[in-house]
Amino acid sequence: GNARMGLQYDSISGDTVLEKRMTVNIDATTESSSGITFGARLRLRSNEAGAGTVNGARVYMSTNGLEIAAGNIYGALDSMPGMYDSEVGLTALNDAGVVTNTVANPATAWGFDGYSSSGNGAEGIEAIYTAGGFTGHLSYSEPTLSSGASAQKRTAVYGAYVFNDWTVALGLQDSSVAAEDKVVLTVGGKIGDFGVGFAAADNDGESKVALNGSATFGATTVNGFIADEESGAELAIGLGVTYDLGGASVMAGVERDAVGDTRADLGVSFSF
Amino acid sequence: GNARMGLQYDSISGDTVLEKRMTVNIDATTESSSGITFGARLRLRSNEAGAGTVNGARVYMSTNGLEIAAGNIYGALDSMPGMYDSEVGLTALNDAGVVTNTVANPATAWGFDGYSSSGNGAEGIEAIYTAGGFTGHLSYSEPTLSSGASAQKRTAVYGAYVFNDWTVALGLQDSSVAAEDKVVLTVGGKIGDFGVGFAAADNDGESKVALNGSATFGATTVNGFIADEESGAELAIGLGVTYDLGGASVMAGVERDAVGDTRADLGVSFSF
Amino acid sequence: GNARMGLQYDSISGDTVLEKRMTVNIDATTESSSGITFGARLRLRSNEAGAGTVNGARVYMSTNGLEIAAGNIYGALDSMPGMYDSEVGLTALNDAGVVTNTVANPATAWGFDGYSSSGNGAEGIEAIYTAGGFTGHLSYSEPTLSSGASAQKRTAVYGAYVFNDWTVALGLQDSSVAAEDKVVLTVGGKIGDFGVGFAAADNDGESKVALNGSATFGATTVNGFIADEESGAELAIGLGVTYDLGGASVMAGVERDAVGDTRADLGVSFSF
Repeated sequence: GNARMGLQYDSISGDTVLEKRMTVNIDATTESSSGITFGARLRLRSNEAGAGTVNGARVYMSTNGLEIAAGNIYGALDSMPGMYDSEVGLTALNDAGVVTNTVANPATAWGFDGYSSSGNGAEGIEAIYTAGGFTGHLSYSEPTLSSGASAQKRTAVYGAYVFNDWTVALGLQDSSVAAEDKVVLTVGGKIGDFGVGFAAADNDGESKVALNGSATFGATTVNGFIADEESGAELAIGLGVTYDLGGASVMAGVERDAVGDTRADLGVSFSF
Repeated sequence: GNARMGLQYDSISGDTVLEKRMTVNIDATTESSSGITFGARLRLRSNEAGAGTVNGARVYMSTNGLEIAAGNIYGALDSMPGMYDSEVGLTALNDAGVVTNTVANPATAWGFDGYSSSGNGAEGIEAIYTAGGFTGHLSYSEPTLSSGASAQKRTAVYGAYVFNDWTVALGLQDSSVAAEDKVVLTVGGKIGDFGVGFAAADNDGESKVALNGSATFGATTVNGFIADEESGAELAIGLGVTYDLGGASVMAGVERDAVGDTRADLGVSFSF
Repeated sequence: GNARMGLQYDSISGDTVLEKRMTVNIDATTESSSGITFGARLRLRSNEAGAGTVNGARVYMSTNGLEIAAGNIYGALDSMPGMYDSEVGLTALNDAGVVTNTVANPATAWGFDGYSSSGNGAEGIEAIYTAGGFTGHLSYSEPTLSSGASAQKRTAVYGAYVFNDWTVALGLQDSSVAAEDKVVLTVGGKIGDFGVGFAAADNDGESKVALNGSATFGATTVNGFIADEESGAELAIGLGVTYDLGGASVMAGVERDAVGDTRADLGVSFSF
């Protein structure tokens, strides 16, 4: 698991509030005599906004590079390489550099399945296949199959290929809610101590593109992004810095999103 | 703990839905210097129907074959040998072969205390005594003692005796709710790779009898039941099959209950 | 963690009810390469009153005797040495010997921050400093910082000093709710097998003083208190006995509080 604590500011409320989180994963696996791995994960999460929760389980089986899972699935789009490379700071702030997050057009923003840390999730099914540098991921959820946990039908897929230090990924989602139809492309790579990434998405006609980069100098890593959204009033920009304490990190970030709101945070984060 | 995933069908809704479960037991024990064992169990459970939960604890002490417990008790009837030997499939479906489950007369069906995996349970007390082949189990719950967790007063008891491969058990419950008065008898045994069981219950006048059997061929086990309920429109029947993968099992079942509804399931189950 | 079970009586309802509790702590720590400890705690708790819960996390970092924490903080007053030395029995009953608990004047009773075992807690910040025999503890919470988890602003502090077998502590709280302003003094110590303690508090003008004592004879410890509260109708008195089984304890207590209500309990308690 992991934990973090710090402070968070946003220009909408003008308030600086405490940021605290602890996440404990309960991972269980077993292996059949023929070599199939069976596993399940349950997560305990305490956020600053309320008491701790137990989320919905993700149960899976995997063999020869193929994993089949049911329940609180990861979701293809949410798992796509490069999707969250633009995140800055301790908390990722408003994720204004993520190209599926159309800040200025909330209708098309977060309508895709992803692992829920404190809720039941999509109650869907998914298959993930890895062979050499290739990864393919198909996820599916709908109201009947999920006993009502998912309100709409979503089919999402991505394919990604890694060659040397570069990764290219293409993702698609078809949903029964038209505003959730998405096409996403990401490219990311490393040149020595520098990282660079590009992402673009068509969110049911609402396009968004983003560039991100990072540079590491010893224990310090600086990263940032700029993103341009079709309906946005301005360019979204973000800047973050991480100082590695060896086992824990001091992290800070500041971000202005596409509608001009500013957020910042500062704190420490560690894994255990 | 254990986990499972698969699909479940019922003829009432006509729907096939995802079935997923993960159960994590937190068992704690300590021993006094005089050899008394003190223990407690808490369970984390995630079902397909919602987010995960923490149940009520069962706290116990045991010595010389006697166990005294308080809280989320197992309950005498629910713990009786042979009670659930008729279950088929991944999920036990509607438990139509369980003789205390009067499908056609819901008033008398599940009115007895049992361990609650996601709730507080009966908040009662119980004593379990084992000596040689004999086991006796007495459980008690009522509104005042349980601070309101139990709505009625229930006293339940069973006695069971194992001789060679055969087990006979007799259980009784007296409740402040008359429809919950029950008398249950079970007999079960093994003849080589074949298992056979008989159960009968008087559920406050609503009688139900059931026969179950199983046969194991290598890694495959087939089991089934037929049950006859006084108010039932038809015989309840069920058939299940389990294929042992060594560490996990593929399980499937189909069942028609006493009012003619059909259910089926298919999936994998494993322990960890 | 720890667990207990037993029975509890109070003269208000006249009822004897089941008492059951299981507490499981999930403690996680890591250390940076420069020797700073980072940690977090999450607690699972099942009480007799309902199903189990996951509380809010307390996240901390510590180095060289200084600990900084955020979230579900311990709170300075609640952590003060000598505050709970008067507790008797399995459950501490009504804590009638605790000088901040003004039984006869509920307005000033429990208005200070403390670790919440089943809720989110104060969502505050605190610093604890230890050097030699000295410990200082400062805690702070307020509505904005806590995103609404705390309804008022509280600043609390205590300083304590240990010399030989004696501990003296002085605590103060200033709150935006006037009735929560408090000054607390405790003195406690040991003389061989006998323990003795004195505590006094000014709870926004409502004064309360208490004396407590204990005596250990082999495996048996007897303890008790008398407390005098300004608005109380009578002296509060309590008597408890603990028999150490080695790994578990049998505990019983009886208490009459300042308004004349009587409570008693009896049971076993153990840690794991």
